Amino acid sequence: MSQPPEHLPDDDDVDYRNRALVPDDLREQDDAPTSEPDLEDIVDFHDTDITAITAALDINNHLMVTRLLADLSATDTAELLEKIDAHDREQLLRTHGDEIDPDVFISLQTDLATSILEQMSAQQVASIIASLDSDDALSLIAPLNDDFRKDVIRHLSAKTRVALEEGLSFPEKSAGRLMQREVVAVPQFWTVGKTLDYLRAATSELPETFLDLFIITPTHHIVGTIPLSHLLRAGRSDKIETLAIDDTFPVPATMDQEEVALLFKREGITSAPVVDDDGRLLGVITVDDIVTVIADEAEEDILKIAGVNDGDFYRSIMGTTRTRFYWLLINLITAILASYVVSFFEATIAQVVALAVLMPIVAGMGGNAGTQTLAVTIRALATNELSSTNMWRSVGRETAIGILNGAAFAVIIGLFAGIWFTSPALGAVIGSAMIINLIVAGFFGAIIPIALNRMGFDPADSATVFLTTFTDVVGFFAFLGLAAVFLV
Amino acid sequence: MSQPPEHLPDDDDVDYRNRALVPDDLREQDDAPTSEPDLEDIVDFHDTDITAITAALDINNHLMVTRLLADLSATDTAELLEKIDAHDREQLLRTHGDEIDPDVFISLQTDLATSILEQMSAQQVASIIASLDSDDALSLIAPLNDDFRKDVIRHLSAKTRVALEEGLSFPEKSAGRLMQREVVAVPQFWTVGKTLDYLRAATSELPETFLDLFIITPTHHIVGTIPLSHLLRAGRSDKIETLAIDDTFPVPATMDQEEVALLFKREGITSAPVVDDDGRLLGVITVDDIVTVIADEAEEDILKIAGVNDGDFYRSIMGTTRTRFYWLLINLITAILASYVVSFFEATIAQVVALAVLMPIVAGMGGNAGTQTLAVTIRALATNELSSTNMWRSVGRETAIGILNGAAFAVIIGLFAGIWFTSPALGAVIGSAMIINLIVAGFFGAIIPIALNRMGFDPADSATVFLTTFTDVVGFFAFLGLAAVFLV
Repeated sequence: MSQPPEHLPDDDDVDYRNRALVPDDLREQDDAPTSEPDLEDIVDFHDTDITAITAALDINNHLMVTRLLADLSATDTAELLEKIDAHDREQLLRTHGDEIDPDVFISLQTDLATSILEQMSAQQVASIIASLDSDDALSLIAPLNDDFRKDVIRHLSAKTRVALEEGLSFPEKSAGRLMQREVVAVPQFWTVGKTLDYLRAATSELPETFLDLFIITPTHHIVGTIPLSHLLRAGRSDKIETLAIDDTFPVPATMDQEEVALLFKREGITSAPVVDDDGRLLGVITVDDIVTVIADEAEEDILKIAGVNDGDFYRSIMGTTRTRFYWLLINLITAILASYVVSFFEATIAQVVALAVLMPIVAGMGGNAGTQTLAVTIRALATNELSSTNMWRSVGRETAIGILNGAAFAVIIGLFAGIWFTSPALGAVIGSAMIINLIVAGFFGAIIPIALNRMGFDPADSATVFLTTFTDVVGFFAFLGLAAVFLV
Repeated sequence: MSQPPEHLPDDDDVDYRNRALVPDDLREQDDAPTSEPDLEDIVDFHDTDITAITAALDINNHLMVTRLLADLSATDTAELLEKIDAHDREQLLRTHGDEIDPDVFISLQTDLATSILEQMSAQQVASIIASLDSDDALSLIAPLNDDFRKDVIRHLSAKTRVALEEGLSFPEKSAGRLMQREVVAVPQFWTVGKTLDYLRAATSELPETFLDLFIITPTHHIVGTIPLSHLLRAGRSDKIETLAIDDTFPVPATMDQEEVALLFKREGITSAPVVDDDGRLLGVITVDDIVTVIADEAEEDILKIAGVNDGDFYRSIMGTTRTRFYWLLINLITAILASYVVSFFEATIAQVVALAVLMPIVAGMGGNAGTQTLAVTIRALATNELSSTNMWRSVGRETAIGILNGAAFAVIIGLFAGIWFTSPALGAVIGSAMIINLIVAGFFGAIIPIALNRMGFDPADSATVFLTTFTDVVGFFAFLGLAAVFLV
């Protein structure tokens, strides 16, 4: 590889102390401290605040509760509601519910927000919804139960109603559900000056904060994107079209939010216009929404691999017990299947009880090695690192790793078991079973999620159960089968 | 809960068709389609592009490769380099390395970027580094091996050198490593007009794109943040200070990037100023960097729970085999410990071989139930939903779920085993062992990550091994121990 493009540094004359880009007015001035904000206060919301409020609630000091609540931001209040116990939460909502800002509900965990809203009247929920941005309103109203949601929508103005109903018509977790309908777009023939004047004049109709501006044709098709920082620095007479950057990535309203998130992560963009089937501008998705999507999707994968439905942390004990029960039940069936395999070899085990002692090792190691492969493959699929181009290479790679580690652990466990039970033959049997099972683990750990993905399923959903079935059954069968042939 | 604040809708007079905020110039115009960008082309980077390039490489058609490469964006080229096999990659870098844009290296997976850079000369790497923004340069140079990195730094200008060395002095994965040093800040006494003029005049020193502006004191302390959209709409004579929004969250340079990401997610901000120990502005972290951090941190947790080091997908087979080996070795020791427990009961198993058939079920179900609890607890810790306030409540909750599901599965497996082996006593023994092990799984699944976290360890790192040790040992001991007492 030779000569990358030359951008050699030539700026040795810069003041190192004030590295920030600060106007000259401020350089080399007196450095005596002035009023400094207390960082701790800004960054941390302390558990002590929670303790103070629950204490005030306990002694029914409502004046104190009101004063403490007033000090909290919307996100702090949401965190408070999440972290206090159910009893305190109910008391707080009953006595101080009217002091809670509508924005608090947006910051709350969905399950909790839904259960609190469903205890309120439709009229109350409607007035909360009406005060929010379109995307926040939609995300709050979507999880409500159908009848209550319809009731709430009836209490809204025609405009909000139409907007919400259209939003609800997009598939769950799609770009259409995520987008903000308040979007700033200007015609391609405008100048920078005209655009700036429009933005200043239209203050009340514009979204409060926006990051990029879109350029559109008369038929509302996207022509380009302009970051505000570029608009700011352009001359008033420049044509707006000349400022458009290359990075415009319109997303169809039906695109899955996980795909939208990948696009943002891949391209490092701050906004993406959302368009309908004809390519017309419907709304905008901004990067701050994507932060939540990425966190949620990765969380979902972790929990699914472990067999937990999402939203688990704030669900009731009975509800959680029930959802976890189903996963455990499927696992029980797998375990019984493995037991059934073992039962074929009862006679062998009765003769060589050492087999019962050692047999969990082979199955367990297969499960562990397979889970390693499974996690890597599921994440590579989720982040699009794994696609049809490198699919078979990846399966081959994981199988090769299975062969190598299988060989290593075959030697280790073979020597160990041979010495423990003073039986070289037993060592050879467990070693052979180990290498077989680790190869199976590598191959199936990679192929199962890929196959589920190809068939249109979420690989994180059920891959673990399939994998354990293979590693348990093969683990027991290889070990006990070889023992039956060579040891008795 | 009564009367949330009233924001009742009053805007029934709005045009529904053009929901986007579009100037009146564009409303109600002819809707005939004009030139529409092809969405597919913009959104997808197809696997067919990869196939075309590898095909051209195979037949040594360099002109074709050059033409195909020229069509790709930096992120596309990075994806290409990631997805082609090692042989094609080497050939491509050898013959077309000089056509690769420095930005490509930023989009590449860290492991791959590092290994490619380490094959180049220090001079070549230095000229790539010199052409990048400070944060990108730092993230590229940090993972290089020490000697080579020093060599590269020697080839850089004094300014870049000082900047990089200061950046490297911050802890790995801290805000200081993540921040961009190019930050836009203006004095608090300026007007909007003066600020706009400064931004236009200083075009060459400013970062190309920025989202927010900071207001600082003469001593470089942060006073406030202004989103560019607010600046745009203000009058020229407004004092800049009056535009500051409440949401300024200065981040110490040493703060862990995971905490920074939580702050962004929690507060929904687009930029955070990074400050030194004295609270002075050093740089800025923007939300697009946070997207990557959140994705990486969640990925790390998934992989760690499964026993895989991160960066795994592009590591060599031997390297991956080695890192996975250590985790499997620790698991082998756990499995042998469990076997050792089983070996106490050899005599019992010899008498009742059905015990060997059934014993994997109890241990396995404990492992599954414990993993559910573990995953929920690790994620709740990572997202700060779990802290000292609700720690014991959470442990109690998980133990309660263990009792409930334990009871359910005790009945199911008790009946099943009792019927299978026509032994009600055996059914009673396995049922009792099941409930004991699921309670243990719930309790330890919650307490292990909490304890690791309190002791300053990463709970995702080793929690799984500790948990399996408990569920295996208790599972076998409870089942076989009860059997020894009540069955023989």
